[in-house]
Amino acid sequence: MARTGRRPGTGDTAANILAAARVRFARVGYAAGTIRSIAAEAGVDPALVLHYFGSKAGLFRAAVDFPVDPAVFVPQLLAPGLDGLGGRLVHFFLETWDSPSGRPLLALIRSVVASDEAAALLREFVSREVLGRLARALRVDRPQLRASLAASTLIGMAMLRYVIKVEPLATARSDAVAGWLGPAVQRYLTDPEVTSRSR
Amino acid sequence: MARTGRRPGTGDTAANILAAARVRFARVGYAAGTIRSIAAEAGVDPALVLHYFGSKAGLFRAAVDFPVDPAVFVPQLLAPGLDGLGGRLVHFFLETWDSPSGRPLLALIRSVVASDEAAALLREFVSREVLGRLARALRVDRPQLRASLAASTLIGMAMLRYVIKVEPLATARSDAVAGWLGPAVQRYLTDPEVTSRSR
Repeated sequence: MARTGRRPGTGDTAANILAAARVRFARVGYAAGTIRSIAAEAGVDPALVLHYFGSKAGLFRAAVDFPVDPAVFVPQLLAPGLDGLGGRLVHFFLETWDSPSGRPLLALIRSVVASDEAAALLREFVSREVLGRLARALRVDRPQLRASLAASTLIGMAMLRYVIKVEPLATARSDAVAGWLGPAVQRYLTDPEVTSRSR
Repeated sequence: MARTGRRPGTGDTAANILAAARVRFARVGYAAGTIRSIAAEAGVDPALVLHYFGSKAGLFRAAVDFPVDPAVFVPQLLAPGLDGLGGRLVHFFLETWDSPSGRPLLALIRSVVASDEAAALLREFVSREVLGRLARALRVDRPQLRASLAASTLIGMAMLRYVIKVEPLATARSDAVAGWLGPAVQRYLTDPEVTSRSR
């Protein structure tokens, strides 16, 4: 809309690159989904992909349409230490979802549930960019398991609060929800007992 | 297939009644969605609705396509007492999902995410038949909140395990998952501290 100075048709080019990226990342994963292969699929020069999206990570994030950058928010949440991390994570997730920048999240859930390709793309993104990053920073045993249990808590709350809209979760304040879920997420992320029991 | 002895066309009648029930229950809720109003919308006699579905509760469950009967499984899970209820609930949910009778659950999640009407129908069903039933039996403070927190845990696990398919949750044994989630669900259902803190 306010994007002046662009030649007509460049919006289509970016959209074509994104469409090609979605297909490649979903099919072959992040590592094998090279800028070169995506550019070839979109019929453009690889330099143009970098011009639009800065880097492969930027293209990946744009392809998923994830509203916040895990390279920024994961270190921010971890900075004060492990104490209270669960509550901070829940609070950040809900605040993001409730903000204007969180609007793509409902569309993201819809596309993931409707399409195996979108599910593969999100799986790759969440495992790599969010859970992987969190897991590497945690320095606990079975970090990938712990991070995915935390993620299941957040997605479950999103389903009940924003999709199915069950009360009192649908209208509760985000800090109340953080108080309810925070200790569970904290336990998943840090409690030694989580990984010592299988039943 | 093996349903012999039915006149041709009765399958359509049942399908019409179900379609009318889905619309009515989603729009006006369970209480106001009378057998009479649903029969009128389907253009059939109310007696025919009872002939096919036994009762309004049976019609409701068929409309939602919920694979198990909360009137049966909620008392069964509660029978041994509150101890270990969280783990039993998780285990039962996963065993149902993994069994042939759980096959409609993925379709149910898909329709709920895609359609506000399906979401309203499931909200009404889950609040009333599952959470309401569980909440009445619990004899704890804020039972509806507690039951909905437990439900968010189960739905979140279903999203990561069956829809997005994140490892290690996607291929973990159901009793391992019950071991990880059980204590969180138990806390939601019974811990006095859950409702005493808001942050």
